[in-house]
Amino acid sequence: MSETRSEISQLGEFGLIDRIQEKFALVNPTSLQGIGDDAAVIDAGDDCVLISTDMLVEGIHFDLAYVPIQHLGYKAVAVNVSDIAAMNGIAEQITVSIAISNRFSIEAIDALYAGIKAACENYKVDLVGGDTTSSAGGLIISIAVIGRANKDQIAYRSGAQVNDIICATGDLGAAFLGLQVLAREKEVYLTNPDMQPSIEKYEYLVGRQLKPEARTDIIFDLREAGIKPSSMIDISDGLASELFHIAKNSGVGVRIYDDKIPIDHIAYETAIEFKLDPITCALNGGEDYELLFTIAQADQEKIKNHPDIHFIGYVHDNKSQNVLITKEGNVVPLKAQGWDHFKS
Amino acid sequence: MSETRSEISQLGEFGLIDRIQEKFALVNPTSLQGIGDDAAVIDAGDDCVLISTDMLVEGIHFDLAYVPIQHLGYKAVAVNVSDIAAMNGIAEQITVSIAISNRFSIEAIDALYAGIKAACENYKVDLVGGDTTSSAGGLIISIAVIGRANKDQIAYRSGAQVNDIICATGDLGAAFLGLQVLAREKEVYLTNPDMQPSIEKYEYLVGRQLKPEARTDIIFDLREAGIKPSSMIDISDGLASELFHIAKNSGVGVRIYDDKIPIDHIAYETAIEFKLDPITCALNGGEDYELLFTIAQADQEKIKNHPDIHFIGYVHDNKSQNVLITKEGNVVPLKAQGWDHFKS
Repeated sequence: MSETRSEISQLGEFGLIDRIQEKFALVNPTSLQGIGDDAAVIDAGDDCVLISTDMLVEGIHFDLAYVPIQHLGYKAVAVNVSDIAAMNGIAEQITVSIAISNRFSIEAIDALYAGIKAACENYKVDLVGGDTTSSAGGLIISIAVIGRANKDQIAYRSGAQVNDIICATGDLGAAFLGLQVLAREKEVYLTNPDMQPSIEKYEYLVGRQLKPEARTDIIFDLREAGIKPSSMIDISDGLASELFHIAKNSGVGVRIYDDKIPIDHIAYETAIEFKLDPITCALNGGEDYELLFTIAQADQEKIKNHPDIHFIGYVHDNKSQNVLITKEGNVVPLKAQGWDHFKS
Repeated sequence: MSETRSEISQLGEFGLIDRIQEKFALVNPTSLQGIGDDAAVIDAGDDCVLISTDMLVEGIHFDLAYVPIQHLGYKAVAVNVSDIAAMNGIAEQITVSIAISNRFSIEAIDALYAGIKAACENYKVDLVGGDTTSSAGGLIISIAVIGRANKDQIAYRSGAQVNDIICATGDLGAAFLGLQVLAREKEVYLTNPDMQPSIEKYEYLVGRQLKPEARTDIIFDLREAGIKPSSMIDISDGLASELFHIAKNSGVGVRIYDDKIPIDHIAYETAIEFKLDPITCALNGGEDYELLFTIAQADQEKIKNHPDIHFIGYVHDNKSQNVLITKEGNVVPLKAQGWDHFKS
């Protein structure tokens, strides 16, 4: 071991990924895309195989004090399927590896896999493998998802063109606010265990946090409309962070409008209640698992009436300018805060 | 959560896997093989894509007190590549997910990835993705490997035919004995930190434990000889356990000869030194990552001079008889002890 000791927190998660990526070059001709997009792309004739993986660690990504274990199983699959959707592909298989301590009973594991199964059925994905092992500490779930797309259909982060329209699906910030509600209820419960949690009003937000859905429906809608997005990513770390990924990888700049960012009215009201800015929640909240993508202007007409696709801005050629335009016309530089598990 | 609480240790690892498997059916036509072999098989035209995954947990699978972290990285890749070899396929890509606590420095992570890179270069495998996250506890490494094989080349556990010859590569039991040596040295060190470890004599055994190799060379040798094994598995849990998998999945019985089991002379001597039976070490030791396979009798001639392929027995039709024949001619029922991380 070296004498020098440098802390991982100095690098952060993206810094660590960059550090790993730069040491590894691709040598196999079948490796079409490696690290740096929502999924890797592997040549398989006319089709490509897409692969992505996510690891969920108890105490870091979830707290079983307020996450029902069945929902956790569902979410673990959904977020992986979302990564395949973000390549404009269809997920077909998953592998699930778990490490569990003897704190967990067979009934708890059954509930976890019931959630996994519900997601598999909903997204038409087969569980084809995995690993089960014990853990000295908490629960760890590592899922790999395999998807498929025609070579010409794949949407990379790097394809955004100047003048393309930036689209976001669904609504943003609700999952983050759901987490705030759950954390507050946990505090209340710890202070006074006789208090009943009052989350009815926040049901939508809590549902967005506990049981997000991958937007595979949007992939089918876009295909039906004859649209191939020029670039795409899923919104896991917050809208701002994902916009930066697309801008950087495509060598362009992005301009979005705050009054176009889709925010549900309950999310809006709850942000105010928590003394948070609703726009900031949407920009940096994370875990929405909506899709962010760009389309050619000529394609806008084809989906202008889609109830769940919102045109939030456009791509321009100044790559040093990623900005938010406020209702008042102010131009505010975007900041990609996102989540970083190595910083707190 | 249910009122009943049943302990996972009642099921064991294989019981848990069976319990999971029976709840999941395959629905996608591209899912050719799910849980139950060394890798899942996914249709990709003439070729198939193979996928397998392994999770290594600190304190369960490795002890950084005596495993250099660089070797750990190498081994984590090698054992996954071995799973693809066990399907008679060639590994081409991996994803690596890690969870790390702030106990680990950047230098430690660099060493881990240096080992991963050395294995990638040795096996000509591309690192195409993964996940990095923090962990409250120790180090967790989850690797998924993607391989390829022609549909007609894939060797399943279920293909062994009556009268086939059973083959094992390399030598067995050495990795287990290497672990015993390391554990003893750790005890000595804890008792007296000034003592220098004396592992020179055991270098081969310790190397087999710390830095096993996947037998991809055998796959190429078999192809060159024009042999497709009728069944194949890698020896990760011990020869006996793997023989049971092949016998059960193929609906046959196996008969092996104790004097045909390949054991290195240092492994033999060290077993005696530790008051262990060398044959038992080979049968139940595990972590050898050699290949166990069956071939048609007509193929035996083609590899009879291969220095690293040993004919250890044959397949017969009585599926209730999996036996070891001793030098003295005694017939001893095989016991599949293997490793079970949920029992101790």
